[in-house]
Amino acid sequence: MHDISIPALFGALAAMLVAAKLLGELAERAGQPAVLGELVAGVLLGAGVLGVVPTEGPAGEIVHVLAELGVVLLLFEIGLETDLREMFRVGPAALAVATVGVILPFAFGFVYWAYVPHPDGGGSTDLTTAAIFVGATLTATSVGITARVLSDLRRMSTVEARIIIGAAVIDDVLGLVILTVVSGLAAGASLAPIGILRTLAVAVVFLVGAVLVGRYVAPRLFDQVVRMRVRYVLLVFAIAFALALSSIAALAGSAVIIGAFAAGLILSGTNQFDTIEREVRPVASIFAPIFFVSVGASVNLRLLDPSRPGSAALLGVAAVITLLAVVGKLAAGWAAPWVKYRRLVVGVGMVPRGEVGLIFADIGRRAGILNEAVFGAILLMIMATTFVAPPGLKALFGSSRAEPVS
Amino acid sequence: MHDISIPALFGALAAMLVAAKLLGELAERAGQPAVLGELVAGVLLGAGVLGVVPTEGPAGEIVHVLAELGVVLLLFEIGLETDLREMFRVGPAALAVATVGVILPFAFGFVYWAYVPHPDGGGSTDLTTAAIFVGATLTATSVGITARVLSDLRRMSTVEARIIIGAAVIDDVLGLVILTVVSGLAAGASLAPIGILRTLAVAVVFLVGAVLVGRYVAPRLFDQVVRMRVRYVLLVFAIAFALALSSIAALAGSAVIIGAFAAGLILSGTNQFDTIEREVRPVASIFAPIFFVSVGASVNLRLLDPSRPGSAALLGVAAVITLLAVVGKLAAGWAAPWVKYRRLVVGVGMVPRGEVGLIFADIGRRAGILNEAVFGAILLMIMATTFVAPPGLKALFGSSRAEPVS
Repeated sequence: MHDISIPALFGALAAMLVAAKLLGELAERAGQPAVLGELVAGVLLGAGVLGVVPTEGPAGEIVHVLAELGVVLLLFEIGLETDLREMFRVGPAALAVATVGVILPFAFGFVYWAYVPHPDGGGSTDLTTAAIFVGATLTATSVGITARVLSDLRRMSTVEARIIIGAAVIDDVLGLVILTVVSGLAAGASLAPIGILRTLAVAVVFLVGAVLVGRYVAPRLFDQVVRMRVRYVLLVFAIAFALALSSIAALAGSAVIIGAFAAGLILSGTNQFDTIEREVRPVASIFAPIFFVSVGASVNLRLLDPSRPGSAALLGVAAVITLLAVVGKLAAGWAAPWVKYRRLVVGVGMVPRGEVGLIFADIGRRAGILNEAVFGAILLMIMATTFVAPPGLKALFGSSRAEPVS
Repeated sequence: MHDISIPALFGALAAMLVAAKLLGELAERAGQPAVLGELVAGVLLGAGVLGVVPTEGPAGEIVHVLAELGVVLLLFEIGLETDLREMFRVGPAALAVATVGVILPFAFGFVYWAYVPHPDGGGSTDLTTAAIFVGATLTATSVGITARVLSDLRRMSTVEARIIIGAAVIDDVLGLVILTVVSGLAAGASLAPIGILRTLAVAVVFLVGAVLVGRYVAPRLFDQVVRMRVRYVLLVFAIAFALALSSIAALAGSAVIIGAFAAGLILSGTNQFDTIEREVRPVASIFAPIFFVSVGASVNLRLLDPSRPGSAALLGVAAVITLLAVVGKLAAGWAAPWVKYRRLVVGVGMVPRGEVGLIFADIGRRAGILNEAVFGAILLMIMATTFVAPPGLKALFGSSRAEPVS
């Protein structure tokens, strides 16, 4: 009746969950955030090493959907834990950090690729288009990874965490705009300012509108829901609300995770938010590891093999791009000088590209704009930035003496 | 990068969850078990009415997998709540009920189809093969539906509930044997007693072996797991354990849900089973409704339309098959005269065919052994038996004076 092998899929999911927790535990015992271990678990289970995580065909689709459920539940949980008033207070700072954190890395990547001599693996298409793609992949911030690290370190309530989360969400809005542009370029279109502005407007209007309407409607709705007698009705309605808002966000031209975050922000204003939060956690704890293992599994360790032809040039390009990626985001940490916070923490928190960078790079590769060598270098940059942020934040937040505020 | 529309899928899932809870609430307020409302929600959202539940293509596959996760978590939870010693005590009675509940309905269905004149919709293949299929679809018991009803009614700890659950699990083992036979027949094979015995032996050896080994190994394993520091490590390991055992069960030739039930039975012997049970519940509460809505969505209401050609003959055949299906399982309630329990309650608990009957019928339809008319009549029987059991059990268990024990 169905094409998929349920036993094989369930076996793979079990392996992903166990590996995530075992390596997460190892990471924590080594003084690192657990999410670092989950990413490493993904690398080990991925196509390059053990090949346990399905990435192709129907099973790959299902793991992808479960991973999306994981990141949706994660952002929903983060939204629930977010104090909207505190968020508004850091709003301008987050906006500044996000904007600088998009413009600088893009400019660095574009200039490097368009104007600085470098090995390019041969056979590149239009240099300007390729340079735009390289720049675009440098702009991403993986809110999921940073948020998990902050949560692992129990620092979600710090001003730095609020700025990072706020900036990462704004970065996702800007990322949508960039994604629209690069997808258009990949399809052969030219740059159209009106389309760009419309994408931006839709994403902003959705987020603001949903939160404004939702904060009025949701408390009244959930005061009715809580009067129902069926089991776990609050939890099921809350998750349905998150899924519905994720769906509406994407259909309105915004992103799934922005809808999930907005749903969390909205429900944090209900009278039942503590029950919802307590019951959502175990559900999220099952799916979030699948997301992080999936991100890790997309890493191809063979790119690091020194015996591969051209690997020296590849590593050189990767090193330069990684440096630009890190410097661009670190600098963004200093983008809001009128607010007191630890600049370096915010800069490091913006560094991981994670799955967002992967999506950009993949579009460029599939359109033939980025050849295998350039794609490989970008993958190495994404890996390096994703893996460096968890220990970096841990080192900064874990230090006993507080960093002086500039 | 992926074929599936995540927004459309998340929207459908949100609708399924909300509809399940709303109609579940309505059912409870009408004095019925909530699962009845969830099944009705599925009918309303299904292809025949609103068409919200995806049944075809990649989205259909994913809903199918999520529904399987739902029934796996449900059986896992039931296993966790099951007292193994109490289960052994009712073992012989459950075996007798299951055996009679398979043999009688099969004999009724076979004899009716092979020897009693009836309208058959024309163009049937080999009459004996068709009669075996009709008999086989009558043997199924949906352990998921009955267990949810008993759980909704808070009667899981009664002796009747233990006999029903035990018999339904044994029925699934026997169902595997029957499935092997009918799949072989559908593929054109003849009846091979050795293959039948091997299937039976594998299923029994798996269930007994897994529980024996597991009850020794699992407590030691989970005493180590509980010493880990990462969040929700017990829950994640427990669910991974259920998925792994489900997977192994299916690969060993048994069924996914038997593995899940065995996993629950095994972990009910760990020192941490109360924490596991408490944390599994919210996760199961999200997926179980997707299973019940999916079962409801497979019902095609158009079969009941009196303006369809041949609908009178179809309804006549359906009425006879339904009667045979109900009488055969009710009679099984009296199969263990040496044990004191309420016969009628056990008989009614064995009545719902649910998704197990659907699977048998679908194999016959796709192999061309059951034509559309016969398949339609069998579907009506499955619907009727599935929908009649919840209010039936409610009426029997809900009555204030206890039924006299025979």
